[in-house]
This record gives sequence, structure tokens and C-alpha cells, in this order.
Amino acid sequence: MKKYDISIIKGDGIGPEIVDEAIKVLDAVSYSCGFSLEYKEYLMGGIAIDVTGTPLPKETVEGVLNSDACLFGAIGGEKWDTLPRDLRPETGLLNFREAMGVYANLRPAIIYDELVNASTLKPEVIEGVDIMVVRELIGGIYFGKPRENDGFKAFNTMVYTKPEIERIGKQAFELAMKRDKRICSVDKANVLEVSQLWRDTMEEIAKGYPEVELSHMYVDNAAMQLVRNPKQFDVIVTGNIFGDILSDTASMVVGSIGLLPSASTGDKTAIYEPIHGSAPDIAGQGIANPIATIESAAMMLRYSLGQSEAADKIDAAIKKALKDGYRTKDLAAYDAKEVVSTSEMGDIIANNI
Amino acid sequence: MKKYDISIIKGDGIGPEIVDEAIKVLDAVSYSCGFSLEYKEYLMGGIAIDVTGTPLPKETVEGVLNSDACLFGAIGGEKWDTLPRDLRPETGLLNFREAMGVYANLRPAIIYDELVNASTLKPEVIEGVDIMVVRELIGGIYFGKPRENDGFKAFNTMVYTKPEIERIGKQAFELAMKRDKRICSVDKANVLEVSQLWRDTMEEIAKGYPEVELSHMYVDNAAMQLVRNPKQFDVIVTGNIFGDILSDTASMVVGSIGLLPSASTGDKTAIYEPIHGSAPDIAGQGIANPIATIESAAMMLRYSLGQSEAADKIDAAIKKALKDGYRTKDLAAYDAKEVVSTSEMGDIIANNI
Ligand SMILES: CC(C)[C@H](C(=O)O)[C@@H](O)C(=O)O
Ligand SMILES: CC(C)[C@H](C(=O)O)[C@@H](O)C(=O)O
Repeated sequence: MKKYDISIIKGDGIGPEIVDEAIKVLDAVSYSCGFSLEYKEYLMGGIAIDVTGTPLPKETVEGVLNSDACLFGAIGGEKWDTLPRDLRPETGLLNFREAMGVYANLRPAIIYDELVNASTLKPEVIEGVDIMVVRELIGGIYFGKPRENDGFKAFNTMVYTKPEIERIGKQAFELAMKRDKRICSVDKANVLEVSQLWRDTMEEIAKGYPEVELSHMYVDNAAMQLVRNPKQFDVIVTGNIFGDILSDTASMVVGSIGLLPSASTGDKTAIYEPIHGSAPDIAGQGIANPIATIESAAMMLRYSLGQSEAADKIDAAIKKALKDGYRTKDLAAYDAKEVVSTSEMGDIIANNI
Repeated sequence: MKKYDISIIKGDGIGPEIVDEAIKVLDAVSYSCGFSLEYKEYLMGGIAIDVTGTPLPKETVEGVLNSDACLFGAIGGEKWDTLPRDLRPETGLLNFREAMGVYANLRPAIIYDELVNASTLKPEVIEGVDIMVVRELIGGIYFGKPRENDGFKAFNTMVYTKPEIERIGKQAFELAMKRDKRICSVDKANVLEVSQLWRDTMEEIAKGYPEVELSHMYVDNAAMQLVRNPKQFDVIVTGNIFGDILSDTASMVVGSIGLLPSASTGDKTAIYEPIHGSAPDIAGQGIANPIATIESAAMMLRYSLGQSEAADKIDAAIKKALKDGYRTKDLAAYDAKEVVSTSEMGDIIANNI
């Protein structure tokens, strides 16, 4: 029987609750599909600070690098927000991404038919939206040097090299080949030199993918177009900070932020996590929605473990749960037949498999 | 009789058509309120390139600096997009902003009751939205140095000094005092040093305005919140590139982008312009919506000339035109009783005064 090593980072806030439900579902699907998953848990974020004094312990880096893939909950909380910058949960997260070499952050924004009313946008605007935002994750202004704040003047550097743009660009084109073969590259080339290099490099990559249609859009216009007519997009590829903003916009456009997964991939390993945060305000109450994390586990099966049949089963199990009218509290207003707890939702989805 | 010198930049695309209608309305209102406006026209953007070889002729800079205020149409078009970077219309625009010292870009996003359906967001989400986005306009990554693109590596610098943040911050607090006394400062302080200085400085300024409530939001969250619940905002203050993205998002949230004005102000002079672009595809057809430009002229009367009674008259005249069911083509789908041309709309509004 095929066996995979999965590293688990539960993190802070609702992280532990939602990851537990994803494991429940993974166990059900691996049993039914005839492979086995071995989990090892590591610390990161606030809990790592509390237990070890640092947001990213060395064992976590090594453990995840040696695993087949990592399932991640969420980190952070007010408790740690006043620590010095290099001790904060966010710093741990950024160092973690860099250490894992996960340069491509994939964030699908899709609509579940049952939840088309959960968006603040009109149903006719969002029905059928299916966008994949591909965000560069370990470069750009997040990591650029020099960076400084002397209390009078402060600056950061938005920088990309051609190889950095090439590797994320190729990822995006490969993804587009498996989808509707349309890429919109987002930049601010009318103002920024770094965007001009981004745009020129995307044009060069496009030559290797004659079937894919490449277009360019300025970031301000892209933010508007996501609100005006999100259906026009297939794959969006963009740099780190623009991707941070646009992927959040895209997920809010489709509305059901408690349902959306993400994958961060590179040449070494991959990290799968819900797009939502650690929501400390509702932690421990059993009301968090575990679906985004369960769907992240499905992405892990599909992209990192090659178990797409198992991934399809999870997708179907989630759809059935929603169709049957089960909702966690966050979605109670949208055609709920029964409002269930975090762990009940996990049970229902696991049973559907 | 009080007399003001107004510099006029019509620009490219639909620029000339819409500015002409604003002048028509300005003439009507100045006549009725007993002051006089003297206009001098200057070139900028594509037309300036065609006529003088440069996007920003010296006479334009001098002429506008010597005027009481500048009414601006829109610039740019595909025709000039392949020119070297320093000859493009956009470069002219950025140099113009810098030369005019207009560090504060004010972009109100409001809803006209008659057009609440023109947004892709649900009416209940946007009814009553009244946001003022205050964007820093002559600093940040737009102007930061060093900046370079050698074809292999490219970078820009996002930089702010404390005095730069202080002057835009004070503008925002002064505006908030005349509104609902709530400011949301948007940054990415969990990642960027330059944002940390921004945040710290905003906190310091806030001490001088005990009546104003200051909150902070990360830019990714702000983009989401504008879509999720735009009513939560009163004044938003942010840096140049974040403001570029968020002000466009905010205007699309309220929907009727053909109606929204802007003001760029500083210590020397001020520029008033619609937020939409030059729309070369519909230029010369007499179908452009002049209301955003007419409303920009109203802002000019209010902020630069101290003629707020005249500004109120324009506001009322626009509201009446919309209430009476007159619509330009862009808004024909929203309760139009009669679809009118650009110049007919100008006539109707001028007659309402
Ligand atoms: C927490 C923060 C540093 C992070 C980011 O900006 O990348 C988050 O917003 C995200 O998108 O994962
Ligand atoms: C044309 C472009 C340079 C400009 C900007 O980015 O400032 C525009 O988008 C704007 O918002 O006025």
C-alpha cells in the first residue's frame, strides 16, 4: 500500500479545529482509495513562540522539507502583535515560505451553486466564476533588499529577476493549458520598471505556449474588473503584493471565503492551507467552517500526491454536504437546512465518502 | 465682480468633449452666482506629444501654476503606448503631478440613489455608501529612487519620509473633521518597513485630533472589506500605489464610474478631473458621460475657489437631471426616460441651474 508522509501545522486560533476535520476526511478517503497517510505535527506561529520562543523552529523547517506535503491551518493573533518584528507570527510565515521555496501561490476562486447568494455581488455577475490566481510568493517587495526604517525615512525594494519571473510565469502557463488557456498578467508597467521586466518576460514565455492567450492588465484596472465582471478571467498571474491584494479581492467577489483553499508550491515541497486567517475571536467554539481546509487537503492529494481520484471524492463529498443543506454558522443565512458544528461538518463530509 | 483664472487641459480621447460640457455648466453657474471665470487652455498628454514633441510642455507647467485651479479631462491612448517611457502620456501626467506639488488625491465614492442598480453589488450593500479615498500622489513607489531595469533584474523603491506622511495625514484628518470623523489608514505594516513608518506617523497625527477615530487596515483586507461591506468606511487614507488600487475598487463598488470626480491638491494649486480615462474607443461619438467632469468642476468651485453655493447648485442640477431620467448611453440601462448625447446632458444640467 502506497504511503505518504504528511507534515501538519495546526497553528493558532481556529487552526487546530479545522485541521483536525481535514485529517478526519483524509483518513476516510485514503482508506477508501487504498493508500495511507502518516502525519507528523510541527509548531509554527504564535504557539511556536509560546512553546519554543521563536515563530519558526528549526525542526519545523526540516520536518516539512522532508515530508511529501504540508497541511497548514492558520497562524497569528493579537496576543503576539506587539512583539518585535522578527519574532512575530507573520515573520515566521514569510521565512517559512522562503525556506520551503514555494514561489507559486495558487488560489482558486470558484462559486458553489448552493452559495451564490453568499456574495455581496449580484448572482448574475458571479454565477460560473472560475478564476485561478497565481501569485508569486517568495520575491518582490516582501523580500526585496535594501529595506529600512530609521524613524524619519523608510523604504522597501520591489525587485524581480528574470529567472524569478520565468518560473512563476511557466507555472501559470502550465496551469492555463489545463484550463481555459487564457492568462491575464497583472502589473503596473506604465509606472514601474520592475513591472516592465515582468511584462516583457511574460511575453517571452508566451512564445512557448502558442495555444494560450496572454493579455496584460494594470493592477488598478484588474481590481476594478474583478468587481465589474469577474467572469472574464481564467488564470491571473501577478507578483507578490499585487497578488496579495487581488487574490483577496477575488475570494471576496465569490463570497464564500470559508470555502476557499490554496496551494503554495515550488521545487522542494508544497503547503496547502485555507485562504482565511486564524480568527481568534471564534476559536474554540466549534463554529469555524472546516471546508476550506478540507478542500486544501483535496488540492494536496491532487497536486502533490497524484491521488486525483481521492481528491475528486472529497470535492463530491463537500458538494453533497452543501447540497443537503448542511451549513456551519458563517453560512447559516444561505439556504441552510441544518446548522452544524465544525466537527459535525467534518463527520458529514467524511461519511459522504 | 470676483474673477478667477482657470487653466484648462482637455487632453486626449473623450477629454475635449467632456471638458466642453463642464465649461458650459461653469459658465451658467458663474453667471447665476455673480463671479466670472477666465479660461486658458494648455496641452498635455498625447496631443502635446503630437503638437510639441513632449507630453508636458513647459508652458503648461507655468500656466497651470499661475492659475487659480486646473480643470483636466483625460489623457492617453494606444497611439502613444509604444513610445519610449519618458515620452509617454503617463510620464507627462506623473511629472505634472510632481511639478504641481499635488500630494493629496481626493476621490469621493458616493451613490446616486437613481443609479444604485448600476453597481454589480447588491443594492442593500451599497445604499448610502459615502467614502472619501485620500491617496498620497507624489511619493511612494511611483517616484522612489533608485529605480532600474537592466533586462535581467529590475527594481523600484517604495519610500516615504515622515514629513510626506504628515502632510497627507493632516489633510485626511482635516477632511474627516468635516465628515463622519472616522479614518481608516491602509498599509501593509505586517510586512513593509515603509508601512510601519506610515502607521506610526498616523498614530502621532491622531493625537492632534482627539475627536477623530483612527483605525488601521492591511491593504489586502481593505480590498476585501470594500467589497464585503463598503458602508463601514468614512475616510480612507493610504499611499500612492495602494490608493491607486483601492480608489479604483471603491469607484467600481459604487458602480457609476462615469459620475465620479476627483481633486488633486497641494500647497501650490489644485487639479480637478474625472476618475475615468480618455476612452479613445468612444471618442468623437458624442456618447461620453460628462457628469464626472462637471462634478469635478463643482469640486473646484468648492475647494479652490470657495464658491460652495455655486458648487451646491451644480450638485443639485446633476441630481435633477438624473432624477428626471436623463441618461447618457453608458447608463441607458438604469431607469432611463431619455437617452441623451454628451452635449445634450451638458445643456440639461446647465439649464437646471
Ligand atoms: C499574513 C501576511 C503576511 C500574508 C501575506 O501578506 O502574504 C497574508 O496576507 C497572506 O496572503 O497569506
Ligand atoms: C495613468 C496612471 C499613471 C495613473 C496612476 O497610476 O496614478 C492612473 O491610474 C490614475 O490613477 O490616475
